Amino acid sequence: MSGERLIYLPLGGAGEIGMNTYVYGYGKPGEERLIVVDLGVTFPDMDGTPGVELILPDIKWLLDRRDRIEAVFITHAHMDHVGAVGLSWDRLRAPIYARKFTAQIAREALDEAGAPDTALHIAEAWPAMTQAGPFRVGFVPISHSIPESSGLVIETPAGRIVHSGDFKIDENPVVGEPFDKVLWGEIGALGVKALVCDSTNVFSPHPGRSESTLAGPITELIREAPGLVAATTFGSNVARLKTLAEAGRAAGRSVVLLGRAMRTMVKAAEDTGILNDFPAVISPEEAADMPRGKVMLLVTGSQGERRAASAQLAQGSYLGLKLQEGDLFLFSSKTIPGNERGVIKIMNQLSEKGVDIVEGDSGAYHVSGHANGPDLEEMHRLVKPEMIVPMHGEHRHLRRHKAVAEAAGIPAIIATNGMMLDLGGTRPQVAEYVDAGRTYLDGAVLIGALDGVVRDRMRMALNGHVMVTLVLDEQDEPIGDPWVDLMGLPEIGRSKAALAEVLEADLAQFVGRAGAKIIRSEERLEKELRSIARRTTQDEIGKKPEVTVVVSRLS
Amino acid sequence: MSGERLIYLPLGGAGEIGMNTYVYGYGKPGEERLIVVDLGVTFPDMDGTPGVELILPDIKWLLDRRDRIEAVFITHAHMDHVGAVGLSWDRLRAPIYARKFTAQIAREALDEAGAPDTALHIAEAWPAMTQAGPFRVGFVPISHSIPESSGLVIETPAGRIVHSGDFKIDENPVVGEPFDKVLWGEIGALGVKALVCDSTNVFSPHPGRSESTLAGPITELIREAPGLVAATTFGSNVARLKTLAEAGRAAGRSVVLLGRAMRTMVKAAEDTGILNDFPAVISPEEAADMPRGKVMLLVTGSQGERRAASAQLAQGSYLGLKLQEGDLFLFSSKTIPGNERGVIKIMNQLSEKGVDIVEGDSGAYHVSGHANGPDLEEMHRLVKPEMIVPMHGEHRHLRRHKAVAEAAGIPAIIATNGMMLDLGGTRPQVAEYVDAGRTYLDGAVLIGALDGVVRDRMRMALNGHVMVTLVLDEQDEPIGDPWVDLMGLPEIGRSKAALAEVLEADLAQFVGRAGAKIIRSEERLEKELRSIARRTTQDEIGKKPEVTVVVSRLS
Repeated sequence: MSGERLIYLPLGGAGEIGMNTYVYGYGKPGEERLIVVDLGVTFPDMDGTPGVELILPDIKWLLDRRDRIEAVFITHAHMDHVGAVGLSWDRLRAPIYARKFTAQIAREALDEAGAPDTALHIAEAWPAMTQAGPFRVGFVPISHSIPESSGLVIETPAGRIVHSGDFKIDENPVVGEPFDKVLWGEIGALGVKALVCDSTNVFSPHPGRSESTLAGPITELIREAPGLVAATTFGSNVARLKTLAEAGRAAGRSVVLLGRAMRTMVKAAEDTGILNDFPAVISPEEAADMPRGKVMLLVTGSQGERRAASAQLAQGSYLGLKLQEGDLFLFSSKTIPGNERGVIKIMNQLSEKGVDIVEGDSGAYHVSGHANGPDLEEMHRLVKPEMIVPMHGEHRHLRRHKAVAEAAGIPAIIATNGMMLDLGGTRPQVAEYVDAGRTYLDGAVLIGALDGVVRDRMRMALNGHVMVTLVLDEQDEPIGDPWVDLMGLPEIGRSKAALAEVLEADLAQFVGRAGAKIIRSEERLEKELRSIARRTTQDEIGKKPEVTVVVSRLS
Repeated sequence: MSGERLIYLPLGGAGEIGMNTYVYGYGKPGEERLIVVDLGVTFPDMDGTPGVELILPDIKWLLDRRDRIEAVFITHAHMDHVGAVGLSWDRLRAPIYARKFTAQIAREALDEAGAPDTALHIAEAWPAMTQAGPFRVGFVPISHSIPESSGLVIETPAGRIVHSGDFKIDENPVVGEPFDKVLWGEIGALGVKALVCDSTNVFSPHPGRSESTLAGPITELIREAPGLVAATTFGSNVARLKTLAEAGRAAGRSVVLLGRAMRTMVKAAEDTGILNDFPAVISPEEAADMPRGKVMLLVTGSQGERRAASAQLAQGSYLGLKLQEGDLFLFSSKTIPGNERGVIKIMNQLSEKGVDIVEGDSGAYHVSGHANGPDLEEMHRLVKPEMIVPMHGEHRHLRRHKAVAEAAGIPAIIATNGMMLDLGGTRPQVAEYVDAGRTYLDGAVLIGALDGVVRDRMRMALNGHVMVTLVLDEQDEPIGDPWVDLMGLPEIGRSKAALAEVLEADLAQFVGRAGAKIIRSEERLEKELRSIARRTTQDEIGKKPEVTVVVSRLS
């Protein structure tokens, strides 16, 4: 193997939805020059990552090859594509390319990370191209649920790759560039070696619907509402915000934007000239003084996020605004799996206030930003790739997407995070397996997912925590009995006595009888005390707790 | 108010799905004789109840009036109706009435709780009635997703109540008694004061479909499957198990039951004569030796439960059985909101093995056990109540159900847990507000939801735990410096030094400078040490941890 090869390596987003991070390389094996496409995050939950702020891809493989990285390209400004740019900057220090709207969103995170202005380059749209080592990369406008999304055309000495980014086929997306079938057909006609393609909606059997179909139903809904109307959607879905705001205006309502994410996105879209006819908005204070039938709130928190505007309105009031009997709350959104509990909680809180709830699940008030099964097939037909690599999806999505490709006679492969492919042949081949994992932003610190920190927290959450303290004098004689502090355990156990007292009695009995050999051995003493604490708690409470033993030797 | 009144008091199930527990009373205010309908549980989750085994209604109100409880009636054997019977027996000691299948399921829990055989009474179906103080209660067969479900006719001196229990309108339920429209019409004709009615599916706009519609599609699906077929559903859905097993047999497959819950339910249905033609089953060992196309597994774990058969098969093997490329896994079930992550995890694990997954969400392979919106309207028409009290549902379900009733001109009210109604008038009225809450089975111990035990565990899960130990001699002089143990916190903080060392340095500095007054005050010393530990951890890690301070005084 002395020739060059063209590699593809997902470090995030392949085998999951979220955290998109893909690497392409070209060169001799082990010496490839590299580019990175997207640096995204995914979001923590109580089930597996309590207390974590954000989840990032583990980029150790990249850091070990930092001198070979030519550039980072960001397809669009969703957090699962751009969210790790700031948090990775100091470690990667590679130039970042994005189109102007995406760049404005990335800029804030890069500033926080102390990156210089020169770190970020604004790319023009295709046919402009950026040279990055052996790669030439073009940003091709593609429709999605955020402005200025782009698929990448990546030209390499071994052929042309189309990296779709997240996309849908929408020829009338309300804001920003439509999906241009002619253009994508022309790119296909240039010859495409591999289409690396979004898979998230592959299970949706019907062709996707255009953003523009929503204006009618939403306008009608709002026009018929007697009281205040609040609507939530992703703050980054600027087209939806426009549709909602215009529907509000058509119904004679003044619009309020509630939630920082929403205002940031609208501002970025206005600053970059993408959005230039958004209805005038009023402040929450102004809205509070108006008749309810004249106000429409656009609020963050469509996924039930605890601190977002929707949650605060559901709980009580937000910036002086309250919802009440006769008001309407529209979820112009779909609940992402895993977020159901939070969303349902808000719905019930609104129900308690007498607010009528309209959900987007019916389809009339929400459309997805991703290509459905038939749309993926159309993309395959337009781009006419020699091979397809499904990306951005759980394993089941990648597997189905592969089947869709193969049914059309196009070779495909499932490559999950850490599976490096060689795209140089007539069909994609696995070249290497690389350690890929997750890094957590925990508080303000980056830690590895396997460091055990979060595992310990989950164990304490499930089992409670017993702390045993024992003081030994200079002669290794116990001073007093061991004592016990509990956290997260019932006070009274099966014997109807206080758990702490039962534990202390059992531990004292052991210490009283233990030989000098055990007492003098740090390791054995701790092990025995821990084991007794666990056994007694199991007997009393039916739980085996986490135990911390602190032996203080005055010697 | 010296006359008698008829009261209704939900202690669980009203304002939530699960944990059904309803009280009816008749007599002078404060002296009512009481009956309890259902004693159910709900299930914990990491979001709010990590480490908890089961969630029960807080029955303090009942315990304070134990001498006034005539009986407990259980409508059916789902855990959210019968699950707290065993755990409540020792505290309540009221006679329990159930039909025979339900009684067999309750029996095991009562045995574990040490209840005598005489605690449990088997009730015959309507028109048989049980006298319980001023109440006469009849079990009227009603269709649902478990055998022998019953609505209750509760006759009182103030009128007749129909308590629907969980139900659907299914005139061909495959196993057990069909919904008998004539019978329910006859009961309606007797005159019904109040219909207390299941609300869980009120948002489903189409009439419910019969269990019997599934046999065709399921049989066809299994017949076309080349490899092994595994299907999961609720173990208690005996009709579904029969449909699945018969479909397997029709496709020339031998059936294996995997999972204790499933075997228990089939056995109970056979023992009680409800199920007498279930296909013969073979053991996992026998199945392992057969061609894959000749085997069908019925497995527990449709909700992604971690230890159930489906999860074990998805992870690797279970009792010698493995799934592989070309096998089929059918979810003959719907994912309950909140369980998505667990179910999706199993789907992806199966996908990794090359197993094809078929979901019940499409409707072809699963029907709900609850009455949809139009079915509820039909029930209202059949029973012709003077008033409707929506039960078993979140607030949004109760609210919609109330609107459905009122649209038909029937007075209705939303009564959530703890809201006691007086049903004696022409429309339901709130009589009192009662403390209603939740009790946790934590390990083997019952604790109150507000005891703080689980709150502390969640705090440790979110924030980590710092333990500070300081030893003081007889003169209150510190022996050595304070030391620190950490659990669930990153080792290295912002200053790039070990967090424990930074903490110990800051704490030692404080102790060195603290005056005797602080050192001698248990309270102030602990407070200061805790405050420093929190502040330093916040500076280093960006998290405010839980802190336990142990000051050992040798005096």
